[in-house]
Amino acid sequence: MAGPRVVTAAVLIIGNEILSGRTQDVNLTYLAKQLSELGVRLHEARVVADVEADIVAAVNACRERYDYVFTTGGIGPTHDDITAECIAKAFGLPLIRNPEAVARLERHYEPGMLNEARLRMANTPQGATLIDNPVSIAPGFQIGNVFVLAGVPRIMQAMFDGLRARLVGGAPMLSRTVGAFVAEGAIAKGLGELQQRHPALDIGSYPYFRQGRFGASFVLRGTERTQIDAAAVELRALIKELGGDPIEGDLAER
Amino acid sequence: MAGPRVVTAAVLIIGNEILSGRTQDVNLTYLAKQLSELGVRLHEARVVADVEADIVAAVNACRERYDYVFTTGGIGPTHDDITAECIAKAFGLPLIRNPEAVARLERHYEPGMLNEARLRMANTPQGATLIDNPVSIAPGFQIGNVFVLAGVPRIMQAMFDGLRARLVGGAPMLSRTVGAFVAEGAIAKGLGELQQRHPALDIGSYPYFRQGRFGASFVLRGTERTQIDAAAVELRALIKELGGDPIEGDLAER
Repeated sequence: MAGPRVVTAAVLIIGNEILSGRTQDVNLTYLAKQLSELGVRLHEARVVADVEADIVAAVNACRERYDYVFTTGGIGPTHDDITAECIAKAFGLPLIRNPEAVARLERHYEPGMLNEARLRMANTPQGATLIDNPVSIAPGFQIGNVFVLAGVPRIMQAMFDGLRARLVGGAPMLSRTVGAFVAEGAIAKGLGELQQRHPALDIGSYPYFRQGRFGASFVLRGTERTQIDAAAVELRALIKELGGDPIEGDLAER
Repeated sequence: MAGPRVVTAAVLIIGNEILSGRTQDVNLTYLAKQLSELGVRLHEARVVADVEADIVAAVNACRERYDYVFTTGGIGPTHDDITAECIAKAFGLPLIRNPEAVARLERHYEPGMLNEARLRMANTPQGATLIDNPVSIAPGFQIGNVFVLAGVPRIMQAMFDGLRARLVGGAPMLSRTVGAFVAEGAIAKGLGELQQRHPALDIGSYPYFRQGRFGASFVLRGTERTQIDAAAVELRALIKELGGDPIEGDLAER
């Protein structure tokens, strides 16, 4: 029997404000954690400027390579919101004014307030399925394996919560973190050997120093709890050999 | 006469910990702001897994396209630190043990502590120039237009400070932000027209809502202060026309 199918994803963060440093992105971390819980592995992320050719190229590169692509940003009513038309171009589909999206906006806005700029938020590629926006109504959409979400974190999160049921993950990634005040350079050899003995796991080492103390958090990730726990026993023994005191959990969070 | 040369950059954030959601990246925002001040325009960023083929592909895609490429992460002593060898592969150069880097590590470590794992931190592509690390000594390096920095923010920032003098920027990007409690959908048409009247500027609209109030911050970016200020006068008038009260600065920071 083949092993469990690996389901992959990419995230595209669209917006000049991230690339200018004006806005600190927090959507990637949110999506990364959520996808991980669903058994979807986030293989890459890109931050793309509000430039049509760049967005089209990034969407096409990622939708061919990964099972799912999630975009954030660029679906508001202003001139710099160009995600919907770029996704349509990437798929070679006409951009239409989605009747169901228009109906939602009509129900939401007071008479006379649904101007052309706001109606642009009802534009989707032909054949798209809407993604609910319980916060501010203007929907996201799904076309093929691409999910188009808002950039405002609270709206993006609400949209993602609503589309969760459409996603089919593989085996969820499990993880266990062990921290210790041992120098990475001291444990590196043993840690590399541990990784070789457990090739199915992804073992990461994240250095930590604060107030003159050097330490690291070691993260064991994989789909099998028994493998992770077996490796953790060896890791804790390795830390003790080096005179350290293994701590369950992330050093940086203590 | 041609206009000022536009100098471009990409940032590659290397590390599984960002893609798993374990670590919230803060290096991109830092680099984005610093590059902006130096007159270097950050056109894209990618978050890449600790996978050789992915790193090599991303480095080669970006170093051909942009004036500068900055990488963060993957230069420590553990098995998951593979950035140096990947950069060497991307350039088709041999990976060498850099004598100057070894000398720095030898001066730093107590006798007997400079083991093979730590010596790996002295590996660079042949011909690389070192980037000083005043925090924990193990250097970054520059090869061609690619600058390889640490992932730990404090070390990355210290490295960047030291290499600043090697970077030649174009005209610095200037910006001015005006906020107002007006709905994006209400101002969108006028804002789009403002953008058309000032094609040399990059005008962004960033919605804001908190405690039931909708507003937005409007960011005017460009290289000419007089253009920005002229557009700001028009923007403030537009906000007032819509019954709003223009506020100098970012709404979200008030």
